Amino acid sequence: MKKVNVAIVGATGAVGTKILEKLLERDFPVQSIKLLASKRSAGTEITAGGHNYIVEETVPESFDGIDIAFFSAGGSISEKFAHEAVKRGAVVIDNTSAFRMTEQIPLVVPEVNADALNGHAGIISNPNCSTIQMVTALQPIREKLGLNRIIVSTYQAVSGAGSEAIDELENQSNQFTKRSEIKAEILPSASAERHYPIAFNAIPQIDSFDSSGYTLEELKMMNETKKIFGDPELSVSATCVRLPVVTGHSESVYIEVGQDGVTVKELHDLLTNAPGVVVQDDPSKQLYPMPLFAEGKDEVFVGRIRKDPEHPAGFHLWIVSDNLLKGAALNSVQIAETLLT
Amino acid sequence: MKKVNVAIVGATGAVGTKILEKLLERDFPVQSIKLLASKRSAGTEITAGGHNYIVEETVPESFDGIDIAFFSAGGSISEKFAHEAVKRGAVVIDNTSAFRMTEQIPLVVPEVNADALNGHAGIISNPNCSTIQMVTALQPIREKLGLNRIIVSTYQAVSGAGSEAIDELENQSNQFTKRSEIKAEILPSASAERHYPIAFNAIPQIDSFDSSGYTLEELKMMNETKKIFGDPELSVSATCVRLPVVTGHSESVYIEVGQDGVTVKELHDLLTNAPGVVVQDDPSKQLYPMPLFAEGKDEVFVGRIRKDPEHPAGFHLWIVSDNLLKGAALNSVQIAETLLT
Repeated sequence: MKKVNVAIVGATGAVGTKILEKLLERDFPVQSIKLLASKRSAGTEITAGGHNYIVEETVPESFDGIDIAFFSAGGSISEKFAHEAVKRGAVVIDNTSAFRMTEQIPLVVPEVNADALNGHAGIISNPNCSTIQMVTALQPIREKLGLNRIIVSTYQAVSGAGSEAIDELENQSNQFTKRSEIKAEILPSASAERHYPIAFNAIPQIDSFDSSGYTLEELKMMNETKKIFGDPELSVSATCVRLPVVTGHSESVYIEVGQDGVTVKELHDLLTNAPGVVVQDDPSKQLYPMPLFAEGKDEVFVGRIRKDPEHPAGFHLWIVSDNLLKGAALNSVQIAETLLT
Repeated sequence: MKKVNVAIVGATGAVGTKILEKLLERDFPVQSIKLLASKRSAGTEITAGGHNYIVEETVPESFDGIDIAFFSAGGSISEKFAHEAVKRGAVVIDNTSAFRMTEQIPLVVPEVNADALNGHAGIISNPNCSTIQMVTALQPIREKLGLNRIIVSTYQAVSGAGSEAIDELENQSNQFTKRSEIKAEILPSASAERHYPIAFNAIPQIDSFDSSGYTLEELKMMNETKKIFGDPELSVSATCVRLPVVTGHSESVYIEVGQDGVTVKELHDLLTNAPGVVVQDDPSKQLYPMPLFAEGKDEVFVGRIRKDPEHPAGFHLWIVSDNLLKGAALNSVQIAETLLT
């Protein structure tokens, strides 16, 4: 396989560091890796895979000679530099929401819609973390049985809000157990007007609200799922909630499949054979996925699969995955791998 | 109002202590209060409302002269002593699941089905905590608009599993922040074969599993809701999850009301005027219920009320309440108050 020159924009962030880890761990055909970030982070030294990397400031010229540029530094940075990178010959794999719903830009989970990469125009969007794990688990079901409806409630980890949010949860947990004052400055999101403690709490807001009363995170799940499945008629409705969990998003997913009379065993069998999915589902052994045990793992874990006694095509699933890996860094690297094969 | 002699069985537990607090705080017409518990706890001194109470061992004779006996010491204690208490002239308000689904025993949330108390035969069941807050919030909607369907995912606090579970969460949080070994001995339930850490985790198991793959907690929500609403045709399907939250259950509730074209404003108005319910719902001010702020409050808080864009009669609600108060102790005391008026 041809070796490629790679850049990671946002290399010092929670996802950027995982992209570097995955590139090295998976023997990605790397010729060179350039780590890019803000001016403030330029000069930072990062050691990985026995190499020392010096972080550089992102400027238009950074992308000269780059084959693949991973962007994970926020939507505004992607908007500023992604087209620039493409102009200079790079393919951009963008982990922000900047271009996800742009019609001609593919939104890709390789296990689901690798086809969408055909004929791309230089930018490829990586979906939202909570969307990726859900569509990965539902794809084998949808493909075989059809899928009419999804109602999802999420249980999302703070690392989805960046490394400052991880620090905040840890600090607040300390403050709480020492009975000292709880300081909240980051969550639900750094740019929000009000901040609430996340330790020992659940915050039903991720990202900001739009006029419909839904949060942008909820709308991402609803709109991105339809785009990835290529099914605008699919009914998707979401409630997104932040939890005091460091890493690992969980989802309580209710689905109605395309036919009646499907059994739990059929879903088990479909999921057991699905790429990137691990079934952890045995109530008699108290086996089910949990975020604490999904951290650091590449797979999407599915359990608590059961028939809705109230609807002939209804099922519940509990879907858990590491939001920084399959939900972000790993999926981006898999997109690059798919492009190269 | 006639003053009554009260006994609290399980007086040293998480719910029992709250029943005593609520009786004193609400000027319940008390003649005398007798605190009962296991032999092991007999002799414990409890100070409340300026009085010293000595906990006594529960024996059949404990109920001689008692008018109202609150039971909150586990199903097996209720099975052993409730009929004995009734035989000796007491009315039993039982906070365990022992008799909830027994046909002739009323299962009561006073705001919803106070009528069910008529003609009771001595035992009245207090519903499961997660059921109570949901039906309290849905009652005004159901009454006015009809209700066809409920799909609920819960976010439940550890105090629902007793005071040992509260200690476990706090200990694990300490162990975690000190990077020392995490000990799990109580959750998901003390009698379970396997125990998992709850700190920085989410456990999709509350109570044990039945052969359907549902947990007993999920089946309680499904069956009790139908019984309280007196509507066996109502479709209810639940997923119950334990969180690292001390007190305050949250619920992501999807409903389909009995007619199309209902607006969010109509639901707001109905809930604003409903007894025991407080609407906290203004996305522009990031106002929504959270468990950390519901702790110690009597009301059921409702927010994130929004239309499902995918279904003409579908809505989402986020319902939060203190699981030890409206979910247990307060509702029990309200049942007693309703009996006395």
